[in-house]
Amino acid sequence: MGSTFGHLFRITTFGESHGGGVGVIIDGCPPRMEIDVEEIQFELDRRRPGQSKITTPRKETDTCEIMSGVFEGRTTGTPICIMVRNKDQRPGDYSEMATTYRPSHADATYDAKYGFRNYQGGGRSSARETIGRVAAGAIAKKILKQVSGIEIIGYVKKIKDLEATNIDSNTVTLADVESNIVRCPDSTCADEMIAKIEAIGKAGDSIGGIVECVARGLPKGLGEPVFDKLEADLAKGAMSLPASKGFEIGSGFAGTLMTGSEHNDEFYIDEAGNTRTRSNRSGGTQGGISNGENILIRVAFKPTATIRKAQNTVTKDGEETVLSARGRHDPCVLPRAVPMVESMVALVLCDHLLRQQGQCSLIDW
Amino acid sequence: MGSTFGHLFRITTFGESHGGGVGVIIDGCPPRMEIDVEEIQFELDRRRPGQSKITTPRKETDTCEIMSGVFEGRTTGTPICIMVRNKDQRPGDYSEMATTYRPSHADATYDAKYGFRNYQGGGRSSARETIGRVAAGAIAKKILKQVSGIEIIGYVKKIKDLEATNIDSNTVTLADVESNIVRCPDSTCADEMIAKIEAIGKAGDSIGGIVECVARGLPKGLGEPVFDKLEADLAKGAMSLPASKGFEIGSGFAGTLMTGSEHNDEFYIDEAGNTRTRSNRSGGTQGGISNGENILIRVAFKPTATIRKAQNTVTKDGEETVLSARGRHDPCVLPRAVPMVESMVALVLCDHLLRQQGQCSLIDW
Amino acid sequence: MGSTFGHLFRITTFGESHGGGVGVIIDGCPPRMEIDVEEIQFELDRRRPGQSKITTPRKETDTCEIMSGVFEGRTTGTPICIMVRNKDQRPGDYSEMATTYRPSHADATYDAKYGFRNYQGGGRSSARETIGRVAAGAIAKKILKQVSGIEIIGYVKKIKDLEATNIDSNTVTLADVESNIVRCPDSTCADEMIAKIEAIGKAGDSIGGIVECVARGLPKGLGEPVFDKLEADLAKGAMSLPASKGFEIGSGFAGTLMTGSEHNDEFYIDEAGNTRTRSNRSGGTQGGISNGENILIRVAFKPTATIRKAQNTVTKDGEETVLSARGRHDPCVLPRAVPMVESMVALVLCDHLLRQQGQCSLIDW
Amino acid sequence: MGSTFGHLFRITTFGESHGGGVGVIIDGCPPRMEIDVEEIQFELDRRRPGQSKITTPRKETDTCEIMSGVFEGRTTGTPICIMVRNKDQRPGDYSEMATTYRPSHADATYDAKYGFRNYQGGGRSSARETIGRVAAGAIAKKILKQVSGIEIIGYVKKIKDLEATNIDSNTVTLADVESNIVRCPDSTCADEMIAKIEAIGKAGDSIGGIVECVARGLPKGLGEPVFDKLEADLAKGAMSLPASKGFEIGSGFAGTLMTGSEHNDEFYIDEAGNTRTRSNRSGGTQGGISNGENILIRVAFKPTATIRKAQNTVTKDGEETVLSARGRHDPCVLPRAVPMVESMVALVLCDHLLRQQGQCSLIDW
Repeated sequence: MGSTFGHLFRITTFGESHGGGVGVIIDGCPPRMEIDVEEIQFELDRRRPGQSKITTPRKETDTCEIMSGVFEGRTTGTPICIMVRNKDQRPGDYSEMATTYRPSHADATYDAKYGFRNYQGGGRSSARETIGRVAAGAIAKKILKQVSGIEIIGYVKKIKDLEATNIDSNTVTLADVESNIVRCPDSTCADEMIAKIEAIGKAGDSIGGIVECVARGLPKGLGEPVFDKLEADLAKGAMSLPASKGFEIGSGFAGTLMTGSEHNDEFYIDEAGNTRTRSNRSGGTQGGISNGENILIRVAFKPTATIRKAQNTVTKDGEETVLSARGRHDPCVLPRAVPMVESMVALVLCDHLLRQQGQCSLIDW
Repeated sequence: MGSTFGHLFRITTFGESHGGGVGVIIDGCPPRMEIDVEEIQFELDRRRPGQSKITTPRKETDTCEIMSGVFEGRTTGTPICIMVRNKDQRPGDYSEMATTYRPSHADATYDAKYGFRNYQGGGRSSARETIGRVAAGAIAKKILKQVSGIEIIGYVKKIKDLEATNIDSNTVTLADVESNIVRCPDSTCADEMIAKIEAIGKAGDSIGGIVECVARGLPKGLGEPVFDKLEADLAKGAMSLPASKGFEIGSGFAGTLMTGSEHNDEFYIDEAGNTRTRSNRSGGTQGGISNGENILIRVAFKPTATIRKAQNTVTKDGEETVLSARGRHDPCVLPRAVPMVESMVALVLCDHLLRQQGQCSLIDW
Repeated sequence: MGSTFGHLFRITTFGESHGGGVGVIIDGCPPRMEIDVEEIQFELDRRRPGQSKITTPRKETDTCEIMSGVFEGRTTGTPICIMVRNKDQRPGDYSEMATTYRPSHADATYDAKYGFRNYQGGGRSSARETIGRVAAGAIAKKILKQVSGIEIIGYVKKIKDLEATNIDSNTVTLADVESNIVRCPDSTCADEMIAKIEAIGKAGDSIGGIVECVARGLPKGLGEPVFDKLEADLAKGAMSLPASKGFEIGSGFAGTLMTGSEHNDEFYIDEAGNTRTRSNRSGGTQGGISNGENILIRVAFKPTATIRKAQNTVTKDGEETVLSARGRHDPCVLPRAVPMVESMVALVLCDHLLRQQGQCSLIDW
Repeated sequence: MGSTFGHLFRITTFGESHGGGVGVIIDGCPPRMEIDVEEIQFELDRRRPGQSKITTPRKETDTCEIMSGVFEGRTTGTPICIMVRNKDQRPGDYSEMATTYRPSHADATYDAKYGFRNYQGGGRSSARETIGRVAAGAIAKKILKQVSGIEIIGYVKKIKDLEATNIDSNTVTLADVESNIVRCPDSTCADEMIAKIEAIGKAGDSIGGIVECVARGLPKGLGEPVFDKLEADLAKGAMSLPASKGFEIGSGFAGTLMTGSEHNDEFYIDEAGNTRTRSNRSGGTQGGISNGENILIRVAFKPTATIRKAQNTVTKDGEETVLSARGRHDPCVLPRAVPMVESMVALVLCDHLLRQQGQCSLIDW
């Protein structure tokens, strides 16, 4: 059951890096919404390998096909299946991985769990699985935009020790993010990031960083007590992405250094008569429920596990050995992680939008 | 549906701070296990208010009653309902909260979501709800211990800027944690923490910090690709706790400052012939599945929102006002958060233990 | 997980015949609805033992207590826990059942499944568990009535070979049903049924029959393709009731004797311009989705398994023996099954009402 | 969420009659089991149209492709996606259905629910959706067979008023069922059934009937109190099939005509020392849990709704009209319903087998 996410807007992904293909079923999509395959392809292109000099050279166009659930350009309300066939497969590149475990990768744990695994290209643990999430995220984003005017913008906040300080989460746009290949809207910092990623790639090593993501325009009231708090579901979504190691919302870990009187977001009434908060250390939720301010999260991604540098490791049969990974890898996952984080945020918000509509909008008693 | 957590070992909590009581139903508990109500009460006592000079003076014994699912001292496999009646209720303390929103608390968002709320003592957003989680956690811990020898130990790692550096997560014991009232096994640091919490409480303010939690003795193979990765479910559990703002596993945010060759956990074969890792920056999981090393997580808790200091806020009717909270509050939630974090970890691991048993242990094909 | 029913309007029951008590948590109830404990008690009184000369003489008032989720007489949108303490317990009556399996009862299968069971009064398999369902059903009925004007009326259609033929499901009222103790609105037939039940009870034996239930006033569009068809969820709800052996909707098994041209419900436009069907062999759904006509189902209940007559059986330890059940039993479950069937219908419809609202009412694209 | 079935062994289907294709994702399949695509194709061939003179002449080979989850001929434990592309599409045949509602079909209710539908060939309500169920059922059957030796055999018991009386559910084999095109193992009756179906088809009309299905070799202990009783989940599975109108287990509706002393299944100890029942009016479950006797269910299917005979109906725009359906239809769904019923039984049992393993096999306390 681990391949399903969401309750009312629910997705189930399938597929491995090598094999027939990867994809997703979206069940519970509101009916009658216009869907253009190009909108989905746009997001997949932001995720695909080979898109720039700082991503893996694996060449996949990741061209998607809508198998069901859309008729005459509109959603029918029934399951939407979107599929991408695998193309640029080089199983030979992975023969060594049949027996040798890559450090900090899932080879050993899949074998321990299932007693068996598809060792080609990471199998189910490949980032290729996120194609289904990003395709579904494209649809979730559209619903959020059309129903509530919600916008979700993710960007690279930090690469290793290079932190972008010149980004305003209240105003940053998709165009700002897409203005450079590292997806950091602080263009000065972006240049440094790109150089650093290129250098580490040439060295056969890898680096990580932090993606920040803002959701603007949320209505108040999304999220549910007590386990399905908005931040709990966002955390689960983010921490289910490959290579993520940490999650925070609003003030996050830095918030632990403040006192309550410094940290609390004081309320005020704005000119339009709305209840607002002067600060947003809460990150857009209080008690797990959206308060109408921006949702602001950060996700930490470790350096890519697969590197060319030689590493000590072991084989499936319990022999110690040395591995210098071949195959084609990203020296840094961050630029491609941006649409993944956005997608998980969109999936969580869309699910909660429908849930709120289901429970709380029936009647005005 | 937001009050249910877990799939095979599944809990549903109920109850508000004021009203009949709070509790939990545990569905899916393995049968025939001995349960002593004292084991549950032990954990509830670690969570209850009024346990020390640095917690809220609200006096509740939080005495639990097992309503069902246990017969002649053993689990029957059917739902276990555990209930605690509310006792020390002072609804008068909360009359102001019927109309005035406490900053960074859930008053305003509950009203926005439901159009209505139980304003006494925080209602459903009260930390009192966690009684159900801790009671269920006590049972989950026992299962994990008996079936697999798994131990879960949480402790206060940091209070504001005071960080305990003298704790070894490989060896720390429950007795170490319980040796002082702040639940920090570094006794020198603990004294400073206690003094700091007392001082901030006297000043009518509050502080936060970080709880670290280790799970030792896990079998390999727990956790599921792709959404129900162990770290994803742990993150959801932790971020569903009141006042949590951040989650990390293993190297966490600090891991983003390393290169892949520095960060990767190299494998080796230990003397017993087991595949192990030399370092544990992964925090016990790879690809979302346990690798047999210790699970190590950290959870950031913000300073308590309710403080006596005057704060600007608004009323339900849209008037700006000033609030100096009365009632009885913790100046710092961390000491009482320790059993809550442990419980969420136990619930996640127990659910995945049963799921792994269900899917992967049927037969040796 | 088997004690939870529904997705958005979700209930979880707990409790055994003997022990602390029984009850239910309702999660997902729409907020702000007025709830009077008397409305719930009314339905519980229709279900309780000892209500008439043709039910078990076990004396339980089944007085319910609302533990949470209702504040100042209105639902808060958070979990509603309703509990009934067990009172008239005579564990001594059941000592024989610790070792001797009652034929066609769940004693043997619970032991086979769990290796252990609460043998007092049927434990978790006792009809006492349905208290939680009926309490939740009372709330579901109220929502359906208030939001959509939906009415649910169940009644005894048949006792053994006595079939009530003088009931119009389009007009039958709750008052008609409650006008006699067997809950059959055909008063002539009711008298015969009562006499038959009394006679069989005196003979130490038992009989079964059929409950019919109609839901009137449904909007079109409730129910979901493909697994959660309305009739599929109704069937699950009905067949989860103790002693049920069969379910049918609309024409049911008799419909297999017709040709398509005889069976199809022809459409027409009524005076108000609505699309209606001239017949209702479909029973209110087409393709699993409500068509606005009456939902009409029938549920078969077997004769009560526990009888005073001597029967051959075996003990837990594998010895053959003879059992003449003591304890206090219903000679016929049908009169008390009526509110149970109504409750399951109400729970299914209420869940689907919220689901439909969640998915399909967001916006008019 | 209505396209997902099962908890641990969980399937999600997608696809419409016309469009890219139909299929299923199976999540939770035990790893390392050998899967041969021919085994799946065998079951799909039993379901496909055009297989004999008494089924629809629509020509589809329904050739399936395994997209994921199987590597080197064995299951990996990750999601198995199986897909069948749509081929013999004649959208022109359905142009009339864009505006005219077929009586007792789902056209009108889909429009009412979603405000929009794929009107080609029934869209999502087409029996073509069951391809995914049957493909998944083939895998579930194999697991049940290999793990527990469970066999599931369905057959046509009745066509209209023609009832097969010469079938022994204890011994009937797949070969018996497949020995004729109507799938009735009583060969004399089968000939009459075939003649009746041919005659009704020529007359432009349709007929229904009853499928009976037996599951033999079950271990004791499958099924869960209280909502997920085995019969409740079987009923849901059966009643989610297109055209089903009734479900019964064991004695079913006929059991209501017996007294308790006649109906109860007396226990005895067989020669091997096992607890058995002399009769099986329970149909293999007591208290919702398997007792080791054969599971025996019956499912009523109405006459096919789509017929060539002229019928009164209405258009989408509220005009009354007359419809004589074109397109290609089955005069009787029963022969093709047999593998569908078997599949739903297999899916339910496989899910409960894994659930039982998960909860109750961990340790012997």
